[in-house]
Amino acid sequence: MNYIAASIAVFGSAIAAAYGNGKVISKTLECMARQPEMSGELRSTMFIGAGLIEAVPILGIVVALLLVFLGS
Amino acid sequence: MNYIAASIAVFGSAIAAAYGNGKVISKTLECMARQPEMSGELRSTMFIGAGLIEAVPILGIVVALLLVFLGS
Amino acid sequence: MNYIAASIAVFGSAIAAAYGNGKVISKTLECMARQPEMSGELRSTMFIGAGLIEAVPILGIVVALLLVFLGS
Amino acid sequence: MNYIAASIAVFGSAIAAAYGNGKVISKTLECMARQPEMSGELRSTMFIGAGLIEAVPILGIVVALLLVFLGS
Amino acid sequence: MNYIAASIAVFGSAIAAAYGNGKVISKTLECMARQPEMSGELRSTMFIGAGLIEAVPILGIVVALLLVFLGS
Amino acid sequence: MNYIAASIAVFGSAIAAAYGNGKVISKTLECMARQPEMSGELRSTMFIGAGLIEAVPILGIVVALLLVFLGS
Amino acid sequence: MNYIAASIAVFGSAIAAAYGNGKVISKTLECMARQPEMSGELRSTMFIGAGLIEAVPILGIVVALLLVFLGS
Amino acid sequence: MNYIAASIAVFGSAIAAAYGNGKVISKTLECMARQPEMSGELRSTMFIGAGLIEAVPILGIVVALLLVFLGS
Amino acid sequence: MNYIAASIAVFGSAIAAAYGNGKVISKTLECMARQPEMSGELRSTMFIGAGLIEAVPILGIVVALLLVFLGS
Amino acid sequence: MNYIAASIAVFGSAIAAAYGNGKVISKTLECMARQPEMSGELRSTMFIGAGLIEAVPILGIVVALLLVFLGS
Amino acid sequence: MNYIAASIAVFGSAIAAAYGNGKVISKTLECMARQPEMSGELRSTMFIGAGLIEAVPILGIVVALLLVFLGS
Amino acid sequence: MNYIAASIAVFGSAIAAAYGNGKVISKTLECMARQPEMSGELRSTMFIGAGLIEAVPILGIVVALLLVFLGS
Amino acid sequence: MNYIAASIAVFGSAIAAAYGNGKVISKTLECMARQPEMSGELRSTMFIGAGLIEAVPILGIVVALLLVFLGS
Amino acid sequence: MNYIAASIAVFGSAIAAAYGNGKVISKTLECMARQPEMSGELRSTMFIGAGLIEAVPILGIVVALLLVFLGS
Repeated sequence: MNYIAASIAVFGSAIAAAYGNGKVISKTLECMARQPEMSGELRSTMFIGAGLIEAVPILGIVVALLLVFLGS
Repeated sequence: MNYIAASIAVFGSAIAAAYGNGKVISKTLECMARQPEMSGELRSTMFIGAGLIEAVPILGIVVALLLVFLGS
Repeated sequence: MNYIAASIAVFGSAIAAAYGNGKVISKTLECMARQPEMSGELRSTMFIGAGLIEAVPILGIVVALLLVFLGS
Repeated sequence: MNYIAASIAVFGSAIAAAYGNGKVISKTLECMARQPEMSGELRSTMFIGAGLIEAVPILGIVVALLLVFLGS
Repeated sequence: MNYIAASIAVFGSAIAAAYGNGKVISKTLECMARQPEMSGELRSTMFIGAGLIEAVPILGIVVALLLVFLGS
Repeated sequence: MNYIAASIAVFGSAIAAAYGNGKVISKTLECMARQPEMSGELRSTMFIGAGLIEAVPILGIVVALLLVFLGS
Repeated sequence: MNYIAASIAVFGSAIAAAYGNGKVISKTLECMARQPEMSGELRSTMFIGAGLIEAVPILGIVVALLLVFLGS
Repeated sequence: MNYIAASIAVFGSAIAAAYGNGKVISKTLECMARQPEMSGELRSTMFIGAGLIEAVPILGIVVALLLVFLGS
Repeated sequence: MNYIAASIAVFGSAIAAAYGNGKVISKTLECMARQPEMSGELRSTMFIGAGLIEAVPILGIVVALLLVFLGS
Repeated sequence: MNYIAASIAVFGSAIAAAYGNGKVISKTLECMARQPEMSGELRSTMFIGAGLIEAVPILGIVVALLLVFLGS
Repeated sequence: MNYIAASIAVFGSAIAAAYGNGKVISKTLECMARQPEMSGELRSTMFIGAGLIEAVPILGIVVALLLVFLGS
Repeated sequence: MNYIAASIAVFGSAIAAAYGNGKVISKTLECMARQPEMSGELRSTMFIGAGLIEAVPILGIVVALLLVFLGS
Repeated sequence: MNYIAASIAVFGSAIAAAYGNGKVISKTLECMARQPEMSGELRSTMFIGAGLIEAVPILGIVVALLLVFLGS
Repeated sequence: MNYIAASIAVFGSAIAAAYGNGKVISKTLECMARQPEMSGELRSTMFIGAGLIEAVPILGIVVALLLVFLGS
């Protein structure tokens, strides 16, 4: 049962990280192309954003690994 | 059963945090590129927003960890 | 059974809080960039809105914690 | 069984309150930025609206709590 | 079984009331900002509309409470 | 089993009534703001429409109540 | 089993009637506001349309009532 | 089992008839308001269309009634 | 079991016929209003199209009736 | 079991044929109204397209009938 | 069990073929009406496209038939 | 069990191939009609694209056939 | 059980590869038609992109084949 | 059971990676075609983005492989 649980947590984390990062990075690219002189500031905001977004999915992966090794 | 419960809580928290933050940060980037002189104020509002959004998912992760260690 | 119940409540609360706050805060950022001179009033309205939106999800987290400790 | 019932009621109430309030408050912010001189009237209408919207979800939370304590 | 039934009725009523009211009230705010001189008439129509919309969900909550107390 | 049946009927009726009325009333408000001199005729058409829309959901609530009292 | 069947039929009929009528009546209101001199003809077409749309859901309600009284 | 079958057939028929008719009639109203001099021809095409659309759902209702009376 | 099968076939056929015909007929009405002098040719194409679309759902209804009478 | 299988195949075939044909025929009507002098060539392309689209659903109906008569 | 499997394969193949072909052929018709002098080249590209799209669904139908005759 | 598995793989492969190819080929047709002088280069890119897209679904069909003959 | 697992992995990989590649290649075609002089650079970026996208689905196919031969 | 778990993790990872990368790379291509002189900077941002997006899915594949070899 905890294997299934680990995979559900992986499923959610992977989709969440990809959705959130995909949205932020594609918007950064769009803004960079429209305002080339701001690309430094935009990229630094992007890194903060990617960090904020990936915090919870990485915790999710940690929970998943924890579940895998509790069950082995 | 509580492993499954923990993974459902992780699933919801990860998707919620990524959805909410992805929306707020991409909008911040868009506004920053349109109004470069306001980037300081926008970024501080973004941090408040990210904090408000991540409050509940972080509680969700706490509930999930709690469920994992109750069940071990 | 009540562990699953707690996680369903966490799931709903996390997604609800992130959806509602994400919408309100991204709209605030957009309006702030369009009307910089109103940013004070907009931000105070945003705080009232975030409070109204988070009221029910926070109650949901309370119900979830209650279910976890009833079941332990 | 009534724990699951309580969590389904919490789930629905949280999402409903966040969806309805998120829509109304973001629209209020948009209108306030377009018509700054009407911000008083708009905000009072927003409070009436938030009240009307939260009436049913709050009743839902009441039903959920009732179910939790009937089942303990 | 009737606890689950009560929570399904609460779920539907909460989402229905929030969806319907959210749509009507946000449209009222939009129209009010576009036509400030009609705000009285619009608000009275909004109250009639909110009444018509909440009639059925309130009946739903009544059915839910009825189910809770029949089953206790 | 008939309690679940009653709640499914309530669920459908509440969402149907809120969806239909929400659409009609928000459209009425929009048209009223665009054509203030026709607001009388629009409101009377709105009442006929709300009547036509709520006919079936009210029958649904009747079926639900019937199921509750048949099963008690 | 036939109680569940009755409620599924009610569910479908209520949503169908509300969806169809909501679409037709909101379109009628929109057209009426754009072409005030045609409001008579539009309203008569609306009644024919509402009749055509409600024919099948009313039959659905009849089937539902039939199922309720066959099963009692 | 055939009661459930009858209600699934009713469900599909009701939604199908309401969706198809709702689309055709609302488009007719829109075209009538744009081209008032063609309203006769449009209405006759609407009747043919409503006939074509309702043919299969009416057959579905017939199948449903057949299933109800086979099972009683 | 074959009653359920018959109702699934009816469900699919009704929705398919209503979706396809609703799309074609509403497009015909739109084109007729834009090009009144082509209404003859458009209507004949509409009949061919409705025939092509209804061919498979009618076969589906035939399969459903076949299943009903095989199972009685 | 093969009755259910036959009805799933009918379901898919009916929806597929109606979706594909509905899209192609409504686009043909739109293009015909925009370019009346090309209506011959468009209609012949439409027939080829409808043939290509209906090939697989007709095979699906054949599989369904095959399943019905294998199971009787 | 293999009858169900055959019908799932038919379901997927029919919807896939109809979706892909419907998209390609309707786009061909649109482009043909916009650029009548290129209709030859567009139609030949359409045939190649329809061939590429139908390759996998036809293989799916083959798998389905194979499953039907393995199970008889 | 492996028959069901084969049909799920066929289902996914057929939909994936049709979705991907349908998107690429319809875009090729659109671009060809807008830039007739580039049709050679566009078509060669289309073939590379269709190859890249169909690689994984063809592998999926291979897995499905492998499952069918392992199970016979 | 591992046959089902293999087919779920194939399902996800096929849809993922087709969705990702379909999006990238159709965008490449669109950009190529708008900026013919950049077609070399766009195509090389497309190949890198297709490689990045197909990396995970190919790993998925490998996992699926591994599951098939572990279970035989 | 852990085979199913491995395939769910593969499913989520493949879709997540393809969705996220597909969005980022297609946006990069669009921006490159609009701003050819920035293509170097855009491509380097794209590589960072693809790295950030693929981090979690690659961890998901690792979890899946781990589950496969724990279960063999």
